[in-house]
Parts: sequence; structure tokens; C-alpha cells
Amino acid sequence: MLDTVIIGAGPAGMAAGIYAARAELSHVVLESGLMSGGQIINTSEVDNYPGLKGIGGFDLAMKFREHCDACGVSFRDGKVTELKRGENSFSVVLENGEAIETKTVIVATGAGHRKLGIPGEEELAGSGVSYCATCDGAFFRGRDVAVVGGGDVAIEDAIFLARICRKVYLVHRREEFRAAKTLVSRLRACENVEFVLNAVPQSILGNGMVEKLTVLENGAQRELAVAGVFIAVGMLPNTELLRDVARLDATGYVVAGEDCQSSVPGLFAAGDVRTKNLRQVVTAAADGAVAVYGVESRLNELG
Amino acid sequence: MLDTVIIGAGPAGMAAGIYAARAELSHVVLESGLMSGGQIINTSEVDNYPGLKGIGGFDLAMKFREHCDACGVSFRDGKVTELKRGENSFSVVLENGEAIETKTVIVATGAGHRKLGIPGEEELAGSGVSYCATCDGAFFRGRDVAVVGGGDVAIEDAIFLARICRKVYLVHRREEFRAAKTLVSRLRACENVEFVLNAVPQSILGNGMVEKLTVLENGAQRELAVAGVFIAVGMLPNTELLRDVARLDATGYVVAGEDCQSSVPGLFAAGDVRTKNLRQVVTAAADGAVAVYGVESRLNELG
Repeated sequence: MLDTVIIGAGPAGMAAGIYAARAELSHVVLESGLMSGGQIINTSEVDNYPGLKGIGGFDLAMKFREHCDACGVSFRDGKVTELKRGENSFSVVLENGEAIETKTVIVATGAGHRKLGIPGEEELAGSGVSYCATCDGAFFRGRDVAVVGGGDVAIEDAIFLARICRKVYLVHRREEFRAAKTLVSRLRACENVEFVLNAVPQSILGNGMVEKLTVLENGAQRELAVAGVFIAVGMLPNTELLRDVARLDATGYVVAGEDCQSSVPGLFAAGDVRTKNLRQVVTAAADGAVAVYGVESRLNELG
Repeated sequence: MLDTVIIGAGPAGMAAGIYAARAELSHVVLESGLMSGGQIINTSEVDNYPGLKGIGGFDLAMKFREHCDACGVSFRDGKVTELKRGENSFSVVLENGEAIETKTVIVATGAGHRKLGIPGEEELAGSGVSYCATCDGAFFRGRDVAVVGGGDVAIEDAIFLARICRKVYLVHRREEFRAAKTLVSRLRACENVEFVLNAVPQSILGNGMVEKLTVLENGAQRELAVAGVFIAVGMLPNTELLRDVARLDATGYVVAGEDCQSSVPGLFAAGDVRTKNLRQVVTAAADGAVAVYGVESRLNELG
């Protein structure tokens, strides 16, 4: 019976591993990808993890992994197919049928960004196509960019980018917004923003780097010359495992506050997978530390 | 009128600076010490900031500062003597009488650990005397240590250290504990823990590194041969500035949740200074990012 099983090896899972190993908890970090790191592996540059300026996402993942290895964190490859709740314990079932018994679980499976699914999106990801204005906006200072979406995040991203970029196109498939009215008014007041409404993105073009976004605006073809396309059409938390286990919100995030405690005692959610305002590498790493603190409190309760 | 003034240049304040600068908010980070870094400057080794294994506290502070400088963060020396609340704005008054006008404020002034005030405590700080078991416990694997205190944190620290160390003395000046009963029972169950009660610490001795803690136990002198002394007798948040401005808890922490929002709109608290479970470099840095997100939302509200 382990003290804790950490599911996922992105920044939250690896930070949890570091704290668990330093606390001498018996543990294992389960990773399902080809290497540790989660979403950041595919990020060309992460410039906002404090203390490591302008580092490549791959290199940042390696730094986290090296830190884990230096602390003696145990990793194991394995996709989790089922999480069973026992009395004051959990059974984590792997693809090969094996079950790991544990007193607590830290779910750090992350979230993905919803894709548009248009030509050029995948090819130019990290080369002008971004899913995070807070992360990547600063790389587009003085350039023209487009934001795609109509919810709060899309409008906030467009306001954020309007301060940094020369021109921002806000591309939305409808004329109305799901976003808060105050946000939309605030965006309308930005002089360097153009609303491109009733507009469906068709393709992202560019030779190695983004050069154009083509849209069908009121049924007519239009080309927007931009260096960046920020796609903000929603997130997809990786929580299928927990569907019948813990409380999820409408989008599928694990309902858990700053203490990372889910609706199930002993089950914690750390990083992008839980309900929170700001999903960043540093907030995910902080969650990893906090979740282990929660695990220790739980172990103290169990006696 | 600035978008935000960040008071304090520890991990929370510098992280806030990085996020504010990257978001192109007009800002200034006010630092009152001789250099940036806050508490970590005096920490010999920080081994749990994910991604930067086994780094000296001073070097970690420098890494944060270099990151700030690369992002164009504005710093200014200056001790804040008063924080005045206006209508949708604040006036931050410096020692020289100058007032900085700003739409929002991020308070990142940190907290200090309450000291015992006995001989050897200051001289051997960082050389066996520690105020944070989560941070430094792993350096004492297989050694004998003492924990001083009788509250939840002291008992949690002793339980934590009992897993790592050979022997743990729990030194408390009374026979009863303020700590939760369940925690005390759990500690009593640890075989390698000795309770040293009705015991008042007298001095910490050692030649360059801690070797002994002397106590007056039931009025009799006793020497505990230990390599580490963990002092957990409370924290002192640096919040005099806010006493008549924002809601503080009984200890003096700014009452603020994960979103770092204080009881005053536009006033945020980031890092050790706010109410939270776990005070670590990584949780402080995360707060810096989250507080700037809050500032942006506030600016959007103000329009």
C-alpha cells in the first residue's frame, strides 16, 4: 500500500513527485506519454516560469525531470484505465490489468485546448499558432494578430493582446458573445481592435511561420495578414477517469479549491485539471506542492 | 496613474513583476531591502523550487531578478510608510514623502518567522537552525533533530521529520498542546520521537554547525545532541501597512483566497503575506502570476 500515486508527469505531477520524495512518502508518478513534461513539451518557449527566463518547453520539462531524478522520485510508464475507491484507499488500475493500491491519489492529468481543426493549425502550432495569450503574447509585440473565440477567455486575451500588439482581429463565428458584457465593451473601446464577426476560420497559412488567417465572413472569403493566431475556443480537461468518482464541473474540471482537495477524501487534483482561474506552469507546480501537503494531512488523519 | 504598484521584491513580488511587464502594464516593484529576494536571500539551499534543484537561496533570488530584468520589470528602492485608499485608486506613500498614484496594488511584503531569541539561534541560522521543515527536512536524513513548539505546525513538522530523521525531540514549554489532538496522537505513535515537555530552550551550541540544544526541563538543565533545530513558534506577517486598510486574520495575515483578492477591490495580497496553507517559494511565485491576472480583471472592470 503506497502513501500516494501521482497520475500524470507534467509540471504539477513532477512538482508533486519532488515534494513527495523529499517528504519520504512511498509514491509513484505514472506517466502515459513518451516522456515527462505534459503540455510544455510542445511549447517552443516558456518565458514566464519565474527563475528560468526564455527557456524552451522541452528544456523546462527536462529541468523538472532532472530535479525529480535528483530527489529520487519514482516514475513508471503506464496508462491508467480505472480508478476504484475503497474504504480509505484507492486502487489504480493500469492498462495491463495490474492494480496499484494506495492511501491517496493526486490526479495531475492536465487539460488540452480545444482545436479548430482547420488546415495549418497543427502544422504551425508553436510557430504563430498559440492557445495561451498570457504565455505567448509578449512574443508578438508590435505585430498584428488574430484571436478566435467569443467567450470570456477570448475577449480577455484580445484585451491583453491589444496592449502589446499593433492590431488585433477578434474573429467570432456569431454576432453575439457568450463573454461578459463589460469585457466586450472594454474590448470595443480598444482602438487597435477590429471585430470580424459571423466569421468562420478556414485555414492558417504561412511558410514556416504564420502569415495569414483565412475566414469566411458573412459567407465571403477574407484574408487577415497576421503573425499570430490565438485560439481560445475552450479547454478539454483529461478527467474521463474521474467521471463516476469525483465531482466535476460542467466543463469537466475536477472541482477542487486551492488546497487541491476533490470531493473525495484522499483524492487530490493538481494543475490544469482542477477548477482555477489561471492555468500556468508556475500555478501547476504550486499545486503539486500543495497537493502533497494535503496528502500528508490525510495520512495524519488516517493514523 | 500606474496600473499597479507591487510592494515587495521577494518571489511573489518578482513573479508579479514578470507577469505585469509581459502584460505591458505600467508598474513598479518597490523593494525595501538591500537587494531583491526576500526571505530566500538568507537561505543556504532551496531544494524544492521545481526546475532548479539544489540552488542557493541567494542564487535563486538572482535568477528571479535576472528574469525580471530580461522582461523589463521596473524596480525602485523605497520603504512604504502608508497606503491610502482613494476612489478606485490608491496612493502609495514612500518614506521620503513622495506618493505614487495607482489603480491597483499588489502587497507582497512577506512574513517572518517568530524567533526564540536565545544565544546561537541567529549565529547558526541556515547551519542547522531552520524555520521550515518542509524546506530543509530532507537535509537531515538519518540525523537527530529537535522541533521547538506546540502548535499544529510544530507537531506536523515533527511527524514529517520522524519519517526522515533518526530521532526527533519535540521540545515544548508546556505539557499541553495547542495543536489538534489527532496530530498529537499521531506523533505519540512515532517510535523515534521523544517528547521533552515543560522545557524551555536556553541556547543552541555548535562549532559552525548545530551540535546541541540546551533546555531547562522541569527546571533541570539538559543537553540534546542534535544536528538540527526546527523552530515552529509562529509567523509574523509584514502587514502593519494594511492594519486600517484591509481585513487581516488574528495572526495578521491578509485575508485573501487563491485569487489573491483582499477585502478591498483593487488591492491584492500575494505570497506569504496572505492566508494560505503552504508557504513555499513556488506557491509565492504562483500568487504573483495570479495577482496580476486579478489586476487585469480589475482594470477591465474600471474600463
